[in-house]
Amino acid sequence: VDRSVDLNSDLGEGYGRWSFGTDEQILQIVSSANVACGAHAGDPTTIRATVVAAVATGTTIGAHVGYPDLQGFGRRFLDMPPAELVDSIVHQTAGLAGFARLAGTSVRYLKPHGALYNRAAVDDVHAAAVVRAVVEYDDQLAVLCQPGSRLDRLASEAGLRTLAEAFADRAYLRDGTLAPRSMPGAMVTDPQLVASRVVRLVLDQQVETIDGGTIELSADSICLHGDTLGAVALAAHVSAALAAAGIAVGSPFAAVE
Amino acid sequence: VDRSVDLNSDLGEGYGRWSFGTDEQILQIVSSANVACGAHAGDPTTIRATVVAAVATGTTIGAHVGYPDLQGFGRRFLDMPPAELVDSIVHQTAGLAGFARLAGTSVRYLKPHGALYNRAAVDDVHAAAVVRAVVEYDDQLAVLCQPGSRLDRLASEAGLRTLAEAFADRAYLRDGTLAPRSMPGAMVTDPQLVASRVVRLVLDQQVETIDGGTIELSADSICLHGDTLGAVALAAHVSAALAAAGIAVGSPFAAVE
Amino acid sequence: VDRSVDLNSDLGEGYGRWSFGTDEQILQIVSSANVACGAHAGDPTTIRATVVAAVATGTTIGAHVGYPDLQGFGRRFLDMPPAELVDSIVHQTAGLAGFARLAGTSVRYLKPHGALYNRAAVDDVHAAAVVRAVVEYDDQLAVLCQPGSRLDRLASEAGLRTLAEAFADRAYLRDGTLAPRSMPGAMVTDPQLVASRVVRLVLDQQVETIDGGTIELSADSICLHGDTLGAVALAAHVSAALAAAGIAVGSPFAAVE
Amino acid sequence: VDRSVDLNSDLGEGYGRWSFGTDEQILQIVSSANVACGAHAGDPTTIRATVVAAVATGTTIGAHVGYPDLQGFGRRFLDMPPAELVDSIVHQTAGLAGFARLAGTSVRYLKPHGALYNRAAVDDVHAAAVVRAVVEYDDQLAVLCQPGSRLDRLASEAGLRTLAEAFADRAYLRDGTLAPRSMPGAMVTDPQLVASRVVRLVLDQQVETIDGGTIELSADSICLHGDTLGAVALAAHVSAALAAAGIAVGSPFAAVE
Repeated sequence: VDRSVDLNSDLGEGYGRWSFGTDEQILQIVSSANVACGAHAGDPTTIRATVVAAVATGTTIGAHVGYPDLQGFGRRFLDMPPAELVDSIVHQTAGLAGFARLAGTSVRYLKPHGALYNRAAVDDVHAAAVVRAVVEYDDQLAVLCQPGSRLDRLASEAGLRTLAEAFADRAYLRDGTLAPRSMPGAMVTDPQLVASRVVRLVLDQQVETIDGGTIELSADSICLHGDTLGAVALAAHVSAALAAAGIAVGSPFAAVE
Repeated sequence: VDRSVDLNSDLGEGYGRWSFGTDEQILQIVSSANVACGAHAGDPTTIRATVVAAVATGTTIGAHVGYPDLQGFGRRFLDMPPAELVDSIVHQTAGLAGFARLAGTSVRYLKPHGALYNRAAVDDVHAAAVVRAVVEYDDQLAVLCQPGSRLDRLASEAGLRTLAEAFADRAYLRDGTLAPRSMPGAMVTDPQLVASRVVRLVLDQQVETIDGGTIELSADSICLHGDTLGAVALAAHVSAALAAAGIAVGSPFAAVE
Repeated sequence: VDRSVDLNSDLGEGYGRWSFGTDEQILQIVSSANVACGAHAGDPTTIRATVVAAVATGTTIGAHVGYPDLQGFGRRFLDMPPAELVDSIVHQTAGLAGFARLAGTSVRYLKPHGALYNRAAVDDVHAAAVVRAVVEYDDQLAVLCQPGSRLDRLASEAGLRTLAEAFADRAYLRDGTLAPRSMPGAMVTDPQLVASRVVRLVLDQQVETIDGGTIELSADSICLHGDTLGAVALAAHVSAALAAAGIAVGSPFAAVE
Repeated sequence: VDRSVDLNSDLGEGYGRWSFGTDEQILQIVSSANVACGAHAGDPTTIRATVVAAVATGTTIGAHVGYPDLQGFGRRFLDMPPAELVDSIVHQTAGLAGFARLAGTSVRYLKPHGALYNRAAVDDVHAAAVVRAVVEYDDQLAVLCQPGSRLDRLASEAGLRTLAEAFADRAYLRDGTLAPRSMPGAMVTDPQLVASRVVRLVLDQQVETIDGGTIELSADSICLHGDTLGAVALAAHVSAALAAAGIAVGSPFAAVE
């Protein structure tokens, strides 16, 4: 039985004067920070402050890359030609890496954001662009993605390390994919329930499906949302439940670095 | 007598579908490419293509950093708090450096663009922010700037290498500063005259002032504009005049790398 | 036989210091100006100058609305939720209309740009969003679009006036749709041939298909591209051929206003 | 004794997914909404929603125009050439006016935001650009600005209606100007004190200065900040104090429309 788990959260998702105001609290809980890189959120000062705060809490840093669309927060599919998408991802990652180096650390993994996450899960063209960006920029970066997705497959085939991500607050279908947000019950909102799902994922590698069944799910990292005060409270519940179960929170990279 | 000279030009100043269309020709002439880094111009694909083209012609790469203002092309003073300016310059440089590394080269110097160039020449706050960005990011980067400017002074005091820049197509005042663009005769537009000024700068370290006098001017690099077809023709004249005078064109970094 | 034709062209497609530099010449030729509204191109000063120039040449003004994506020049599909697309189109049109009013004229029609043009031709959701934006903002605006497209259909059903657009420099398939750009021969580049196709379209309402057949095509307006020097030369050829055939160039709105 | 007062607040200052989340509560209190127009904040959907919400509460709508600088939230001085500033202000106002018309109302006044507010208070060039934009766009718009400022003076000279603005939560100097934020005591944060200052401003046209004196101050509108939860609480205090003193809250335009 694995007695530790990586928790990841999307951080640095502000822009200029705007922010969700919850990063400080979330950084006390998670072990991996998906840092917005300026495409869907994140100006240079926000990126830098997020990196510095993550270093202060010993949180591993990943590049949270997305479509260049501040207005849509990277949640609208943008049909970029693959070469442009590759260049954008390389540029986003390089900018983050610059601040990581200044803070005495380095970027360890990459996770697509929003619409890019969803697209790269099912579309070979954009999945391959993500893979190519990582291979070109630094093939030692791991790719945090949905297990069984096209991105997972193509990244593995390219020899990249992949990290399987699970969502504690999202319902699953029998085939291991996420229930669409439009489906009733797709979002799990009860903090106690989310916490118990996380513990079960860690201890048993199992999750209950939306129709009451059980599937096996082996996750390298569990995503906690952190962009609302409710999300922070939920994350705190998860943290407490893990502690009560004797499960440590830690990044897969912590020992390596 | 120095028989070689560095010619620099602003390159990669397109954005998306827009470009000035002259980079290819200018790269045949100059030895140093000031590459736009996304703030005043330059999307990731443009930046990458410019770096690749510069590598193909053996041109040294510098970061042409500016105020984040695409609409104003970095030519409008933007009163950024110094910390934000530092972060922006670091981010711009890091993004360019990522593409330089992928192309098998590295960024060797930094030159402020437009309104930042002018401001950092006379204002200690923004000059110090440029210096701090270089010191933080990589103190081996040289700073290409106007000799005698505040930036020149502060960069030198910080132990950075500075490169003195001269403008062949701009008239000078007796005190060694540029004649304001609003002054009649401030722009030298005759290609033959510009070419002869360049040759004289290299061989004699002298330039004629706007009022017909002569001043000493020791330049490490001479700027050629390249954003119009006329500018390209002018650059070609300069190139031919240098060849006729037996003067080689080469970057101060060429031998080092 | 109709002895007049409306020629339209995309204008004001610059941003800040960038432009294609051909607007002045194209305005001498066309009768309708599709003015970029800030989403895919066009800052306020560019928009205003374009409107003023169009008024000076007596050219009718249309709103050339697109996805908000300067970097992609509106040529990348952006999956905006319909309500956001409606709001964006209303906002683009209102901004243009402000400058039109100041110049003593008004916006008469709307034409989707680039990826939005293509999407609204085949997709009911985005076509309906364009229609709803026009209905909400001003149902007296005509919609310039491809005949037989979904946008054409939905606009007509909503009671809007539609203007059927033909392309003189694009090859057609037997079903009246445009040959994909990837198909050999999809672009007609010979100026003489383009000019003769325009004349035939006006006089006979016919166009030759890519496979040598002939189809009927009744166009209210013919699009001339104007973003390159070659395009300007081609437009001049078309203009001369129309004059030689005794065909006047004029907007369908000219008499109304 | 005037028994009514206009309260204004900056609203619609979100962008895409970001917002301060307080507009709904503030709209219950104020009589005039300064709506962000897309330059410092405000995408089309945000602008529209803000206008619709203001109409629902009977709140008068003003154009809150600023320098085009989302990253800096319009708080960084941007040295735009005056013609560009005029065009930008016209464009911002026209976009807002489009949504106002769709919502069955109209824009009644204009207030500069942030760095533009401060600059136009002391600099004739940018003050004149604001005035020119109003004159060109609609000289029936009032200008909400600091009494005695350059903008106040130039707008009056141009025949525009001006509205004198006071700040209940900012300390004043003896000369009637605001104490710089850097001065200790420049911000009045005690809700009871702010509320009593508002009441005194309305009933006696007086305000206490930072050094304990009293000056006369005749305000047409009092600004309440609303971008934090604390600001909302403060606004509620002001509202209650006004009610207790028998003072109504109402826009100077309410009766006109």
